[in-house]
Amino acid sequence: MTFTLQQALIPVDQGYATVDVQVVGDTIAAISPNLEVVGTVVNCENKLLLPGFFNAHTHSSEMWQRGVIPPLPLELWLAELYDFAPLELSKVYLSALGTAVETLLSGGTSVVDHLVLIPGQEFETIATAVRAYQEVGIRAFVAPLIWDQPLISGIPTGGNQPEDTTQGRSATEILQMLQEAINKFHQPEAGVYILTAPTGMQLCSDQLFAGCVELSDRYNLCRHSHLLETKAQQLLAQEKYGCSAVEYLNRIGYLSSRTSLAHCVHLTDDDIKILAQTQSTVVHNPLSNLRLGSGIAPILKYRQAGVNVTFGCDGSSSNDSQDLLEAIKIGSILHNVTDLDYQHWITPRQSVEMAALGGAKGFNLGDKLGSLTVGKKADLVLYDLANLSLLPRTDPIGLLILGRPTQVVDSVWVDGKRIVENGAVTTINVEDLKQELFAKSEWATNRKSKTVTQFEAHYRSVMGLPEAEIKGYS
Amino acid sequence: MTFTLQQALIPVDQGYATVDVQVVGDTIAAISPNLEVVGTVVNCENKLLLPGFFNAHTHSSEMWQRGVIPPLPLELWLAELYDFAPLELSKVYLSALGTAVETLLSGGTSVVDHLVLIPGQEFETIATAVRAYQEVGIRAFVAPLIWDQPLISGIPTGGNQPEDTTQGRSATEILQMLQEAINKFHQPEAGVYILTAPTGMQLCSDQLFAGCVELSDRYNLCRHSHLLETKAQQLLAQEKYGCSAVEYLNRIGYLSSRTSLAHCVHLTDDDIKILAQTQSTVVHNPLSNLRLGSGIAPILKYRQAGVNVTFGCDGSSSNDSQDLLEAIKIGSILHNVTDLDYQHWITPRQSVEMAALGGAKGFNLGDKLGSLTVGKKADLVLYDLANLSLLPRTDPIGLLILGRPTQVVDSVWVDGKRIVENGAVTTINVEDLKQELFAKSEWATNRKSKTVTQFEAHYRSVMGLPEAEIKGYS
Repeated sequence: MTFTLQQALIPVDQGYATVDVQVVGDTIAAISPNLEVVGTVVNCENKLLLPGFFNAHTHSSEMWQRGVIPPLPLELWLAELYDFAPLELSKVYLSALGTAVETLLSGGTSVVDHLVLIPGQEFETIATAVRAYQEVGIRAFVAPLIWDQPLISGIPTGGNQPEDTTQGRSATEILQMLQEAINKFHQPEAGVYILTAPTGMQLCSDQLFAGCVELSDRYNLCRHSHLLETKAQQLLAQEKYGCSAVEYLNRIGYLSSRTSLAHCVHLTDDDIKILAQTQSTVVHNPLSNLRLGSGIAPILKYRQAGVNVTFGCDGSSSNDSQDLLEAIKIGSILHNVTDLDYQHWITPRQSVEMAALGGAKGFNLGDKLGSLTVGKKADLVLYDLANLSLLPRTDPIGLLILGRPTQVVDSVWVDGKRIVENGAVTTINVEDLKQELFAKSEWATNRKSKTVTQFEAHYRSVMGLPEAEIKGYS
Repeated sequence: MTFTLQQALIPVDQGYATVDVQVVGDTIAAISPNLEVVGTVVNCENKLLLPGFFNAHTHSSEMWQRGVIPPLPLELWLAELYDFAPLELSKVYLSALGTAVETLLSGGTSVVDHLVLIPGQEFETIATAVRAYQEVGIRAFVAPLIWDQPLISGIPTGGNQPEDTTQGRSATEILQMLQEAINKFHQPEAGVYILTAPTGMQLCSDQLFAGCVELSDRYNLCRHSHLLETKAQQLLAQEKYGCSAVEYLNRIGYLSSRTSLAHCVHLTDDDIKILAQTQSTVVHNPLSNLRLGSGIAPILKYRQAGVNVTFGCDGSSSNDSQDLLEAIKIGSILHNVTDLDYQHWITPRQSVEMAALGGAKGFNLGDKLGSLTVGKKADLVLYDLANLSLLPRTDPIGLLILGRPTQVVDSVWVDGKRIVENGAVTTINVEDLKQELFAKSEWATNRKSKTVTQFEAHYRSVMGLPEAEIKGYS
């Protein structure tokens, strides 16, 4: 694993430079024009080299339902999602592979999988996802998605809560399982990180949060949760705690420089100050926020307040893809309509920094990842600038971020290991993966979610929507 | 050109059906399961067949500046665009080819090119674009972009207009040139349509509009313009006419069922009623509206008012791509954040109808194009459902629209002629095109627009933005 990238285009302060990059082991050893060759030579002529990006929030098994859930807001969408969530480890494995492949081929070298656990097979679900990510070779942040309150409690009651028959495990049982998963799978040196990841205040008890804080402190783990994704959650926090969800999380000591929070759509200016003070990271999931009608997260305000922001695809039932470049593009230009002053708009180079270094910082690796810096780990992506979607030659980063790059990733290295070459993943057989995904699925659109039917009238009432005929969505 | 598509998946009222489709000459002759074979057989197993979409608003030559213009609002962005617009016919030719290829490979069979004309070579620019589109075989709506007032007059004066040295041709000269172009190039039977296309009220005189109305009525041409793309244009209309731009266009008789209007971001409810009454079409360019910070067009309101809506990529300096599926996705989900009631949100099947039939209606071909209907023209697109980005199998249209399909177009027919096969354009050599785009361009980001510098202080003042240091954008 010693090699020299020759003649790569990289961004520098004033435009671009053509350089050679020496990688020794898992580390960037030198960056300079005309270096002596060490190890294998990789010809990078007409190719752009960037640090790998973070797909900083996703739920891999949602791949099985991508494209099929009708236009619904989060609370009803979740009801449908869970009615049809996969209950087989073999599917968890395949969707983790698929998520890794799509992330790699759109510029990501790290994936944060807020992993939905199969009830009764929680530990095995984690084991399965870890195995898939290790086979692919992507840097994997596995965040077992835990919650201990019934699904309906994620919707404000409005003083009138319908019955819910969903049954979860207790906080104690969950934390015990998590402890075992940490013992077994948390191996930073092997590129696998376990996170404590209570889904969010909407479905988690104080006890569960406290247990996660304790575990994350004991093992120096990152913390990862959803935060104020919807207006309903904003209402719920007031109903549940009499304060904003951010104030609550701050009070219980959950916010820190190791804490990353997905969505953050409905925060007040005071909430934003707390995120900045605690050095928490916002994971921006623009496509999911649009698809579910959650809103536009105030990303320009976060940046002005000094809050670290990075990007996620979110699960592919709410996006419905794992194309990180698409999430970065939309997550950058979306905010131009929220502030008339274009001098505040995100530039393509800032987007790259958010996606790479922003992710590294958010997951406690700012000193090891996220930039083309001698001494950092070699998590690198090489883009083919002769691809039609990156032509004609203009500003390579401008076009990568603002265009619609299609199959532009030539090569990917994680920890110095090349896992994509000539646009193809080398560690697993993607043709086999496609065939298995095909074989284990069917074109079916006439399904009907029982739980949506059960929740819908209550949701509409609480959210102030007119009573409406329950439609057969198609 | 007689052939039978066998075993294609198509959408029907309840889900999907597997059918055969006979095409005779340029026309769909039969659609039914198990038809007898006529002509060549095309195996469509595991493939989705849809009517071709319209890329209903673009400016092909912007391809030469895609990715390079910094985050700027329309009025300043235009200033930079025109400072560096290509002045060579050879470039016009290549970017028309590129625009056609990217449109075809993302589901489009028709392109509406609001074509920027080279000063002094207006007629030749049109001839060049027509030639490119005919070589590719895409259905081409060439809309020569005309205007007869200086660029600075697109910005409200606020009582204080800076000098502008740009010089255009007179309305009379322009209309004369347009008449010649119509005589020479308007050939619907050959798939080439000339449109009358004054850029918009912001840069056009009454005389120019009147001449366009007259020509379009005489030759039954479509009319195409920008409309109220920005807040600045909304202010300008009041300054110029003392009424909204829609009221003005209605008064001069410009609005009709043959009129399509790009952007339509800043309309009042009364304006929307006028569009509905006149049966005008809105061309929604969501990506460009985000990129330029123009705003979110009230598309759900248009649909509720019965206004026909279709999608465009807009020119690829303001998007910065020609991926129609991306424009359709974002143009569909973007509006979920504008209306809490999810029962108003656009479904994927509605998106398909807007992109296909909405386009056909907007360009006066609703009876000939836009749906899989016996007797209509065979403008067809076949999608490969075994592509990784369309797996696993769920709802094919849901995933096509809401996912991020990558190289999923297997075949395209326009007027019954197959011009894409196995994912590759067959009519031109795309490798040669790439090489020419590469050779005629360079990676250069240190350019500086003279006109932006000239306009910026005035723009900021009129738009109520604070005075600011003029930055060197990077």
